[in-house]
Amino acid sequence: MNVDMNSLREIMGLASRPGVLSFAIGLPAAELFPREELAGAAARVLRTEASSLQYGLPYQPLKTQIVEMMAWRGVRCTEEQIFLTSGAQQGMDLLSRLLLPPGGQVLFEQAIYDGIRLATRAQQPEILTVATDPATGMDVDAVEALLAGGARPAFLYAITDGHNPLGVSLSLEKRHRLAALARRHQIPVLEDDAYGFLYYGETPAPPLRALDEDWIFYLGSFSKILAPALRAGWVVVPAPVAARLSPLKHGVDLDTPSLGHRVISAYLAAGLLPAHLAMLRDEYRRRRDTMLAALREHVPPEVRWNHPTSGMFIWAELPPGADAVDLLRTAVETEGVAFSPGVIFYGDDPRGARCMRLCFTNLPPERIEEGIRRLGRVLRAGLPAL
Amino acid sequence: MNVDMNSLREIMGLASRPGVLSFAIGLPAAELFPREELAGAAARVLRTEASSLQYGLPYQPLKTQIVEMMAWRGVRCTEEQIFLTSGAQQGMDLLSRLLLPPGGQVLFEQAIYDGIRLATRAQQPEILTVATDPATGMDVDAVEALLAGGARPAFLYAITDGHNPLGVSLSLEKRHRLAALARRHQIPVLEDDAYGFLYYGETPAPPLRALDEDWIFYLGSFSKILAPALRAGWVVVPAPVAARLSPLKHGVDLDTPSLGHRVISAYLAAGLLPAHLAMLRDEYRRRRDTMLAALREHVPPEVRWNHPTSGMFIWAELPPGADAVDLLRTAVETEGVAFSPGVIFYGDDPRGARCMRLCFTNLPPERIEEGIRRLGRVLRAGLPAL
Repeated sequence: MNVDMNSLREIMGLASRPGVLSFAIGLPAAELFPREELAGAAARVLRTEASSLQYGLPYQPLKTQIVEMMAWRGVRCTEEQIFLTSGAQQGMDLLSRLLLPPGGQVLFEQAIYDGIRLATRAQQPEILTVATDPATGMDVDAVEALLAGGARPAFLYAITDGHNPLGVSLSLEKRHRLAALARRHQIPVLEDDAYGFLYYGETPAPPLRALDEDWIFYLGSFSKILAPALRAGWVVVPAPVAARLSPLKHGVDLDTPSLGHRVISAYLAAGLLPAHLAMLRDEYRRRRDTMLAALREHVPPEVRWNHPTSGMFIWAELPPGADAVDLLRTAVETEGVAFSPGVIFYGDDPRGARCMRLCFTNLPPERIEEGIRRLGRVLRAGLPAL
Repeated sequence: MNVDMNSLREIMGLASRPGVLSFAIGLPAAELFPREELAGAAARVLRTEASSLQYGLPYQPLKTQIVEMMAWRGVRCTEEQIFLTSGAQQGMDLLSRLLLPPGGQVLFEQAIYDGIRLATRAQQPEILTVATDPATGMDVDAVEALLAGGARPAFLYAITDGHNPLGVSLSLEKRHRLAALARRHQIPVLEDDAYGFLYYGETPAPPLRALDEDWIFYLGSFSKILAPALRAGWVVVPAPVAARLSPLKHGVDLDTPSLGHRVISAYLAAGLLPAHLAMLRDEYRRRRDTMLAALREHVPPEVRWNHPTSGMFIWAELPPGADAVDLLRTAVETEGVAFSPGVIFYGDDPRGARCMRLCFTNLPPERIEEGIRRLGRVLRAGLPAL
């Protein structure tokens, strides 16, 4: 890959300047955080619970509440299968430490959330990859062929709903096949469901964890549905695996309940999450639809993009010969608009060179419209002639 | 070592039953946490700062405030040298990942905080050890001899004030020698200063970091001086090292500022910490003195203990032939009192078998007095005849 990552970092830095309309970072909408309710919950917890600030065991009431939330996703589990983490990223780190020996194999999609690469980097794994179909998700035929050919990855990483960066959700048929493959070959699947509660159509297909409870290790997070700075996530794993995570987390950050976990529990106990989720789905659906309409209106027809039903991202592919990093530089410098170029998610694979990830959740609709208008000008001027 | 760790875990579980007066765990006093002020700070942060719950860069104002706090300890540093962590334990984990290659050497004292063993366990290090003098701290002659003999540890771990578990503070002369050795041999020292702000006599000797800024990597924490569940600590390291910690923390938990960091910053901005620290020092001094007086009154004279000037722990040594784990079982089952047996801190080294660590900060003075009275009965009945 001939992308200069330092140069990319410099452009992304420019993209955070005031005035730039940025679709680059996967940010939830800060103005939709239930700040008043969380402030009330925090004050209540601190004033009434003497132990709320002390060392202690992971906060059991939150585990009970997560069991109920998992049922909304069609997943049956018990408190003993829940392990609380400091965000889903910590779940990836701890499970990588537990499952992946140095130099072991992992199985990723070619384009994937860069955090899973960071979480596994210390083990310097051999990374096997499969492609992703833009309409139905991960190429499960390729997974099957790899496993049949003798590959024995320590785990497979999958984002089944609202894929980051591709926006796609895995088809129901592929979910069944992937869960069956995991079972048959006894390969753990790390199912990252950070976006699964954010769906914009009918209730979505069940996560893989609803189809198998022995080999699907589920990663959940409050970052996208409540707020990132609460630093709260969870994993759902077989109970013996959960028990093995605790000493690992003790060595990492003492596995003591954080204030954020208590605040979330108080917020959930007040019954506020369902209405908040309904509001988020309405508002993010509006933003997605605004971005899709603006793309149709302002962006040249040779650019292709998908129509996500969950999550935060639209994925767009530029025509052959285009260079997304070059276009990003122009976009930031001349029009004050930014996106994430595909290279960020493709690792060393050159396939990302002409792709863009657009986050549709962070800006309000009128600024999305304006941002895509600016992007359209950049693309009309900068795409290679057909 | 012939201690059955499962059996020890069972006893420690019993020690947490209601009614047991426990000196076993290193807990600050929950009733002294400034809950009302932190509740106010949390509500203020959440209501007034739109970005307080969003992803973002580590919280810069807190770094500026920590620079000022470090000056209270006699340490000069800059914001660029501060790296914010989720408690001091995360500092140990990240620095271990950065500095310690698989199978590398580390240099510990024989009796040491078990969290540093956990933080380095993944690398399966070769552990070199030195003894600790009960009055002056780490055996620096032994450190010098090891280094002169060709040992090249990835780092040396030291608790200079209020040592956990030994209660001792390193003498000024040894501080100078240790800093000079680190410099001469270019060996990083991880200086764990979790207890340094809790001193009970004159202002203590400066931490090692005040004597050398290139090789002393300082670990600080708000857990003992504000509250553990805020999950906030920091390291002070050379600026290039701080820059290398950020991508590591990104892979571990995204390195986003937590609500706890913002709440602490608001609390510090209100100028509340100096008076809180003065109150903690007064109250913990009273508790330490109560425990020392009760030990003199109730415990047989063949038991020896020290007089810590900082921190949370008194270390006691039983006469030859005594077994601290046996005594602990009796203490919990018959008298309802608990301590930490030395084996917890000695790893595989048999020297801990007849030692006890007593935490004096967690219980109020009248319960300390009662607990030591109970412990005295256990020891008078259970110590081997002289």
